[in-house]
Amino acid sequence: MMSSTGSFMTRLSDVARDVEACLETLLSNEAHSGEMARPARLISAMRHAALGGGKRLRPFLTIETARLFSRSGAGPLRTGSAIELLHCYSLVHDDLPSMDDDDLRRGRPTVHKAFDEATAILAGDALQTLAFEVLADPATDADGSVRADLVLGLARASGLGGMVGGQQLDLAAEGRYGVAELGENEIRLLQMMKTGALLTFSVQAGAILGRADQERRQALRIYGRALGAAFQVADDILDREASAESLGKRTGKDLEKGKATLVDHLGMEGAKRECRRLVSEAQEALGVFGPAAETLREAVRFVAEREV
Amino acid sequence: MMSSTGSFMTRLSDVARDVEACLETLLSNEAHSGEMARPARLISAMRHAALGGGKRLRPFLTIETARLFSRSGAGPLRTGSAIELLHCYSLVHDDLPSMDDDDLRRGRPTVHKAFDEATAILAGDALQTLAFEVLADPATDADGSVRADLVLGLARASGLGGMVGGQQLDLAAEGRYGVAELGENEIRLLQMMKTGALLTFSVQAGAILGRADQERRQALRIYGRALGAAFQVADDILDREASAESLGKRTGKDLEKGKATLVDHLGMEGAKRECRRLVSEAQEALGVFGPAAETLREAVRFVAEREV
Repeated sequence: MMSSTGSFMTRLSDVARDVEACLETLLSNEAHSGEMARPARLISAMRHAALGGGKRLRPFLTIETARLFSRSGAGPLRTGSAIELLHCYSLVHDDLPSMDDDDLRRGRPTVHKAFDEATAILAGDALQTLAFEVLADPATDADGSVRADLVLGLARASGLGGMVGGQQLDLAAEGRYGVAELGENEIRLLQMMKTGALLTFSVQAGAILGRADQERRQALRIYGRALGAAFQVADDILDREASAESLGKRTGKDLEKGKATLVDHLGMEGAKRECRRLVSEAQEALGVFGPAAETLREAVRFVAEREV
Repeated sequence: MMSSTGSFMTRLSDVARDVEACLETLLSNEAHSGEMARPARLISAMRHAALGGGKRLRPFLTIETARLFSRSGAGPLRTGSAIELLHCYSLVHDDLPSMDDDDLRRGRPTVHKAFDEATAILAGDALQTLAFEVLADPATDADGSVRADLVLGLARASGLGGMVGGQQLDLAAEGRYGVAELGENEIRLLQMMKTGALLTFSVQAGAILGRADQERRQALRIYGRALGAAFQVADDILDREASAESLGKRTGKDLEKGKATLVDHLGMEGAKRECRRLVSEAQEALGVFGPAAETLREAVRFVAEREV
């Protein structure tokens, strides 16, 4: 049971270390069960994209949610790592010249800068595939229908109606395909798709592994959605406030690209108020779990306040 | 039971029509079960990539293999369509300017030409995701472990150690990353990864749906591999012989890019002999199924002789 921010941060970094080790194994040359070759340049690019950094927030949510149901070990770790692989693929493709055209990510060269554009596209493609491979593998859960549910949930959160669809709307919001003035509700939808859906699924995945009943599944759904929304409002606030130095990537980008954010609609103070409201909503949804959910309660506060 | 090429062609086009209808449903705006928006431009690009053409050879193999085990209907059709979605995603990404830089595909503009590069990348991404979503959906098979097996098989055939890895090796074979002189065995490995693995899985998927025993699974594995290899040798022969008009895409490309093919190593006559050998190997592997496998026997002949 975590109660102080200090022990929360310890727990977060412990999980990040486990996830790093799991990803290292999944992306090593020896780990593969098939007979085919694994092209060295492609693996290097995948490793560049997935290893050595990040808070591993999504796996943390999966692992901590599974712990509510006394599930721990390889299943939640592999599931969280698969979600992280999916997240990393999306970053590689979002950074491409024809998309957001970013040269830096977490202070390091993006994959198409460190390698080349073709390799970056293929590395993203293969990271996506690997995410589904990991989920479908019997090592993740003995029960095939649990594995199929995980695959289905991840696919819905990350495809046309989720993350990828959100990225497409985001490009449109920059005015690439004609004038696009987004209202508050459209911004919320875009954000829910682009970022929120995968965060929400990170929580749901823990519930799937834990064979949660309907009541608990629903509580975690509300929690996950509010957390995802809080994450994005905090991101909008960060984008407006933070300096390039402290983040290791270019900021004020939304402003630069003329893209509307919730800060435009709600004002800075309104956005911060909305963020606090979402934190409360998420925390209250966890009532059914009692003190066992303290880490998840801290997680949403952490997400909302991470640099704000 | 098919015995003449006429009835084989009828069967092939009947299945292609069923697959087209299935893909149309999967890519319609109404079909989605989630609550999220489906961005119109992205769906249009996915439809451009996946609808309106092709022999649908991979779904045909899945559906005809499943029929050996008296499985027909939605399961094999959805599985075959998922493999086709995966195949279409690979074509969209392979055509990109930073990859093969093709303007035409089946005589129509490629996705990045008809839309734009960012949309083409995202459409490919979402087609891959949709393939896994379709396989993991209970509508494909009542048994969760069958669905998980299908996902696992498709992921292994199409990821780092399969199709995507093969594409990376193919780029390297053009000499992009330094001099690359491929020997005969390296060309075979590259081709097995890039094209063969997905064709082989198309057959295996039918065996998974049919709950095939080990003996039949092994026979179909040999069949699938020989068919995949025959497909690629025929492709190399085609690339050297066919004219741009008859294919609707640029040909002689391998030659143009200085890329070695099996025709270089075996000579034209040797390549044709190898192709015939592979057809025999594939057909003989089907012995255990007796006359019921006549369509699959015709399929490998069709693959090997399609334009040669």
